[in-house]
Amino acid sequence: MGDKVTFNISKKNNFSKWYSEILNKAEITDMRYKVKGFVVIRPWGALIIEKMYKFYEQALQRTGHLPSFFPSVIPKENFEKESEHVKGFQPEVFWLDDVKGESKLALRPTSETVFYQMYSLWIRSWRELPLKLYQRANVFRYETKATRPLIRAREFYWIEAHDVFATKKEAEEQVHEDVKMTEAVMHKIFGIPFLPMKRPEWDKFPGAEYTIGSDSILPDGKIIQQPSTHLLGQNFSKAFDIKFKDKKEKENYVWQTCYGPAISRILASVIAMHGDDNGLVLPFLIAPIQAVIIPIYSAKNKRNILQESEKISRLFFQQGISASIDDSEKRPGEKYFYWEMKGVPFRIEIGEKEIKSGTVDVFIRDLKERVKCRIKNLSEDIKNLGAEFDARLVKNADNLFKNSIENCKTKDEIKKALGSKKIARIPFCSVSDGGIKCAEYIEKNLQARVMGTLLKKEKPSASSKCLICGKKACEMIYAGKSY
Amino acid sequence: MGDKVTFNISKKNNFSKWYSEILNKAEITDMRYKVKGFVVIRPWGALIIEKMYKFYEQALQRTGHLPSFFPSVIPKENFEKESEHVKGFQPEVFWLDDVKGESKLALRPTSETVFYQMYSLWIRSWRELPLKLYQRANVFRYETKATRPLIRAREFYWIEAHDVFATKKEAEEQVHEDVKMTEAVMHKIFGIPFLPMKRPEWDKFPGAEYTIGSDSILPDGKIIQQPSTHLLGQNFSKAFDIKFKDKKEKENYVWQTCYGPAISRILASVIAMHGDDNGLVLPFLIAPIQAVIIPIYSAKNKRNILQESEKISRLFFQQGISASIDDSEKRPGEKYFYWEMKGVPFRIEIGEKEIKSGTVDVFIRDLKERVKCRIKNLSEDIKNLGAEFDARLVKNADNLFKNSIENCKTKDEIKKALGSKKIARIPFCSVSDGGIKCAEYIEKNLQARVMGTLLKKEKPSASSKCLICGKKACEMIYAGKSY
Repeated sequence: MGDKVTFNISKKNNFSKWYSEILNKAEITDMRYKVKGFVVIRPWGALIIEKMYKFYEQALQRTGHLPSFFPSVIPKENFEKESEHVKGFQPEVFWLDDVKGESKLALRPTSETVFYQMYSLWIRSWRELPLKLYQRANVFRYETKATRPLIRAREFYWIEAHDVFATKKEAEEQVHEDVKMTEAVMHKIFGIPFLPMKRPEWDKFPGAEYTIGSDSILPDGKIIQQPSTHLLGQNFSKAFDIKFKDKKEKENYVWQTCYGPAISRILASVIAMHGDDNGLVLPFLIAPIQAVIIPIYSAKNKRNILQESEKISRLFFQQGISASIDDSEKRPGEKYFYWEMKGVPFRIEIGEKEIKSGTVDVFIRDLKERVKCRIKNLSEDIKNLGAEFDARLVKNADNLFKNSIENCKTKDEIKKALGSKKIARIPFCSVSDGGIKCAEYIEKNLQARVMGTLLKKEKPSASSKCLICGKKACEMIYAGKSY
Repeated sequence: MGDKVTFNISKKNNFSKWYSEILNKAEITDMRYKVKGFVVIRPWGALIIEKMYKFYEQALQRTGHLPSFFPSVIPKENFEKESEHVKGFQPEVFWLDDVKGESKLALRPTSETVFYQMYSLWIRSWRELPLKLYQRANVFRYETKATRPLIRAREFYWIEAHDVFATKKEAEEQVHEDVKMTEAVMHKIFGIPFLPMKRPEWDKFPGAEYTIGSDSILPDGKIIQQPSTHLLGQNFSKAFDIKFKDKKEKENYVWQTCYGPAISRILASVIAMHGDDNGLVLPFLIAPIQAVIIPIYSAKNKRNILQESEKISRLFFQQGISASIDDSEKRPGEKYFYWEMKGVPFRIEIGEKEIKSGTVDVFIRDLKERVKCRIKNLSEDIKNLGAEFDARLVKNADNLFKNSIENCKTKDEIKKALGSKKIARIPFCSVSDGGIKCAEYIEKNLQARVMGTLLKKEKPSASSKCLICGKKACEMIYAGKSY
């Protein structure tokens, strides 16, 4: 903590090293815990995650969701009720040692089979619908691939929302509302653009009718899967016997959806998307410290300058800006370096000269530029600069994302696109089970994954052929490399 | 949810039934999940818990603590490092089925052996001290006694703070700061009075030098253990090899403390302490809805009255008061009943008459009285009434608590005190291991637990004898019945 921090790694040339290093140097995570796949999230990471949770929970509550806490363990009999679900998740489950008098217990990899046992007890009539609950929770999945902190670990931190409706129409509307929520929070607040992708039949959530995933991209061209929303239809309501009486007293199975933003994983995108060769760049709205104040003093004027710094800090606090004064014994240059690496959006340097002139230099993390601001208007200015800061991050991310999608007309072009860190847009035969062979071809020969089709359906021209098998192309799919 | 709610159980005559019923009727918890000891916390409970977490986390951050997320699983080798600790917790541990390539894994019953492996990696010099981290987390304990929702379950929701210092003096100061935090948050905000008790030698936290518990009382005279803070001394730093170099470059083991407020358990006290025969009574500061607005309308004036209700609700929102309009189709009487049962502090009835006169009746949940307020000043008034509301709950709880401590001079008086739902204050031989026989006597013959001695040491008069064994009384202890 007192140590001099040196961070200067090329994100462009060696993203993988850059990412590992920044997590260590900015004290976001630590991989040295003695169990494979279980990663410690340190205070700087936890503070960001808490702010991200806050925005997500607000968005959920605004759309009629309420919080709850459900158990972490699932009795085997619950877990096995929906046949596709158990098939899909079985290999990833951590089981508990036998507990006296209990069915075998699983640690939740996801909580459909926890919530829905209760839903079958709670729901009786149309009056209870819609029912929209969520929980913030840690979940557990037995991953066999290499751990990548925040991206792939055996325990992660997410929100899961489980919604119940009287009709299929309402459930489908919820799926769209979930995608809008991803857009409003993950894209517009956290600055992570994504493609809302309807997954191919062979890649949907186990137990769902269909799945809309959100795929974003990492600077090394790898796609990263972000929040998914699933139309569960009546698969689980039939398995768990969740029925309601409609207004005509007729009994029906309910319609269900679920939605799962993994906050720790979205943080991976935030770090990867916005960071630069000097370290983190955090969006203003989720930065634990939004402005750091660096007092520049000699022994003579120390007291006065610290007082002025305090005054500014107090003003910021009253205006809802989180600020911190760095009055440690490090040299100013070291402090600059440290807080740039931590991704703090604004740095305010204040010394004798600044107090006299009534103006300070505000250093802007992403631009690495200084602007002059009057001390009198500082809170107002920082808020405005903060809004501009976040808008700029979104815009830059959007540009990068837009440029990373490549229209492909031949197999070679797919290969080229994937080789140059892009997502390939491909005319394709079919995303129902008929297309699985072509998807396997892409996986084996191009080491890429078929992400699916855009939620807002695009159709290839009538004469298009599937670039893999040459049959008629009925879909426009996207494919990319992933970890 | 649409159902008419009937709740009218005597808390005084049948607390146990009252408590179970209120948890069901107010939709705080549900016991019907298919695994023994794992309780579902429903939205009304979760919303209160979230507010309680917020106050506790603020208090922790104000005293220099930072949040973090540590893994939920503990490798056996970590768990076994501190011999007293493992002895104490072993019987309560849920173990995972063997995981390939891993040491046997425990689900955390508490996280000393998780945090401290990392602390030994992070701490090198006095510059890193003090280190004060906390996490909000779910923990797991294999309880064999009957489940009591929020009071005793196999999974519960708490905060654990793990602090590290260079000297024993600082560590002991932290123990006192923790007790002050319990006082500031649990007593002054949540309205739960308690006795800070130094536990007898035989009842301290496994691995601690000593433990300060906080004991409160339930309306049936049972004591309920609330946040404990522990001076761990150097027991864990020696077991985990957590050393630092002091300013003279000399290597020392660190001094440690830990503190564990169980938020779900404090909610049990909040419900039990403040509720009445009509249902919950929630402190203003942690009520999910602080004021409910009931529009009283006919078909003719419905639109106008709903508009006025909206106006008030919007004003409340701007002033940071959480309000809700109940415009459901229930009759006003049913609505009154429902929100009283839910414990909402204030109810505002607004109809034609109120709009004309510019005044409304505000019904105050705990007093069951109405006061008139001008609509113009309503936000201000509600805030003031809210502060009075909470002060009143604290005062009432304090009175009840004060009256439930009985000075005992004979064995018979102990029996009488315990029989009349009181805590017995008893001259006692010793709280080091010499007193254990007398404690066992109290346990076996009076079915009560020796809680310990007051943190602020009291001494019995020089001639006092232990009421159990008749030897010299060196301590003044407290004993009570517990679940």
